[in-house]
Amino acid sequence: MRKIVECIPNFSEGCRTEVLDQIVESIKAVPGAVVLDRESDPNHNRSVVTFVASPDHVVEAAVAAAKTAAQLIDLTKHRGEHPRMGATDVIPFVPISGVTMEECVALARICGERMWSELEIPVYLYEKAATRPERENLATLRKGQFEAISAEIATIESRRPDFGETRVHPTAGITAVGARPPLIAYNVNLDTADVEIAGKIARAVRHQTGGLRYVKALGFELKDRGIVQVSMNMVNYEGTPLFRAFEMIKREAERYGVRVVGSEIVGLIPQRALNAVADFYLQLEKFSEDQILEHRLAGAMEESEA
Amino acid sequence: MRKIVECIPNFSEGCRTEVLDQIVESIKAVPGAVVLDRESDPNHNRSVVTFVASPDHVVEAAVAAAKTAAQLIDLTKHRGEHPRMGATDVIPFVPISGVTMEECVALARICGERMWSELEIPVYLYEKAATRPERENLATLRKGQFEAISAEIATIESRRPDFGETRVHPTAGITAVGARPPLIAYNVNLDTADVEIAGKIARAVRHQTGGLRYVKALGFELKDRGIVQVSMNMVNYEGTPLFRAFEMIKREAERYGVRVVGSEIVGLIPQRALNAVADFYLQLEKFSEDQILEHRLAGAMEESEA
Repeated sequence: MRKIVECIPNFSEGCRTEVLDQIVESIKAVPGAVVLDRESDPNHNRSVVTFVASPDHVVEAAVAAAKTAAQLIDLTKHRGEHPRMGATDVIPFVPISGVTMEECVALARICGERMWSELEIPVYLYEKAATRPERENLATLRKGQFEAISAEIATIESRRPDFGETRVHPTAGITAVGARPPLIAYNVNLDTADVEIAGKIARAVRHQTGGLRYVKALGFELKDRGIVQVSMNMVNYEGTPLFRAFEMIKREAERYGVRVVGSEIVGLIPQRALNAVADFYLQLEKFSEDQILEHRLAGAMEESEA
Repeated sequence: MRKIVECIPNFSEGCRTEVLDQIVESIKAVPGAVVLDRESDPNHNRSVVTFVASPDHVVEAAVAAAKTAAQLIDLTKHRGEHPRMGATDVIPFVPISGVTMEECVALARICGERMWSELEIPVYLYEKAATRPERENLATLRKGQFEAISAEIATIESRRPDFGETRVHPTAGITAVGARPPLIAYNVNLDTADVEIAGKIARAVRHQTGGLRYVKALGFELKDRGIVQVSMNMVNYEGTPLFRAFEMIKREAERYGVRVVGSEIVGLIPQRALNAVADFYLQLEKFSEDQILEHRLAGAMEESEA
């Protein structure tokens, strides 16, 4: 199977299109790196780029992007709603096919080492690449943002970076580099205008407040439609599949006499996450992905090339 | 998008492995033709080969296979449970990606013309490639099999082939060449030993007896498990999707106090047929296949190669 790693770096620039253009170009300049998506949010003043590459090239592309970002973004002048600590704020490596999580952790370490040695940007390792449990959570790591970390990195032991000396880059700050499973942004819409119900169901379904282990959730109003939404991040779709969260929300909604009117996937979803849904609802026996025509075809093509 | 046609020729030989080996080799010898599957049934004395190729090469591979079959199979000596009329009995062309049904009909005509001009095997066009409504159905076309067609082809107008003179090939018979949507073999298992219930539900769900337009169905016993099965051919999964047949069977079973214990896909299924199931049960809003990571990746790869 072809080895593919996904990388989704976040940059602290969501307004100047030309800056993002140059960052994207520096990724595309690396052989075999393919940019799948880019999204900028002016309110957050932040952009997210999604690209894929082989394990041999993915770090090169990530470091190239971080170098461009360090040249063009000055964090001392950055303002935006979203918390941030670096010009390149986070670099997660995600196993897509033919690659293990352990390999992605190893890539995060190589990337972290290069960020310091080549760009003088210190690095925290996070999520599956974290070197201590309290660094797994990005929000904890980023507490106080660029300003607090700049002030405390030299003096507070818990702020010490995993790679680099105890000083942030003067304008590019510090970057969190990690490895994690694919994340799916998944929302379920409810036929009520009462946002409290969405909030209650979000608390029931999310891990933090007693719900499903790999679900983060919040309740929102969709004012233009006069309905509400349970908005989720499915942080490990193999551990907690979409259908399980969907069915749980449907059942909780019933308790308030409310119905699910639909759900939506925001951005990208791995094919396997959808296949698991079909498998569940059709109650499939002995189903294998090798029965999917496109899957078999890809396998046969590789064999005939080998 | 890459242009892919699937071809699933059926051969009247299910016992002599070496014959099928040679047929498969003659397909593989055509550049770009990839064999995905082969299955032989000794009782039926029949084999099914599944391969894919571009529209430019798929006919070449089908004719090459038919040529080998004509050299190695003598229909005058063939016995088996399954009805047949040719050494190569049927050749359906199926649009998989980047190809329309009309293109597959055109391929069937080119193939039919070559079967006669190169191999002296006459051809009936069937299903979407049929030249008259009564030839759409393969079973109607094959009535009386090789023996009856041999006797009647010269004298009965309705037996006249679409390509070739009014005589069958002395040992290779006559072949049905056509175009059709992908076929999915899909079974639903019921928690009862009463095969009559499976039969009643099969009659409710199948087109022929008032059910869903693109479903063929029969009831069977699964003796080893002590349960029964509604066994279906989904002949057009876009017209009648899997979830609709599944839900209908579930509801009909309830009426007898019986439950669905599982379902199974036999052989290959196109990815889109599974995606439609996930879309239905999650009640997805505004979902596009372009949101599937692998789909986006394939598209981006092609762009970067172009």
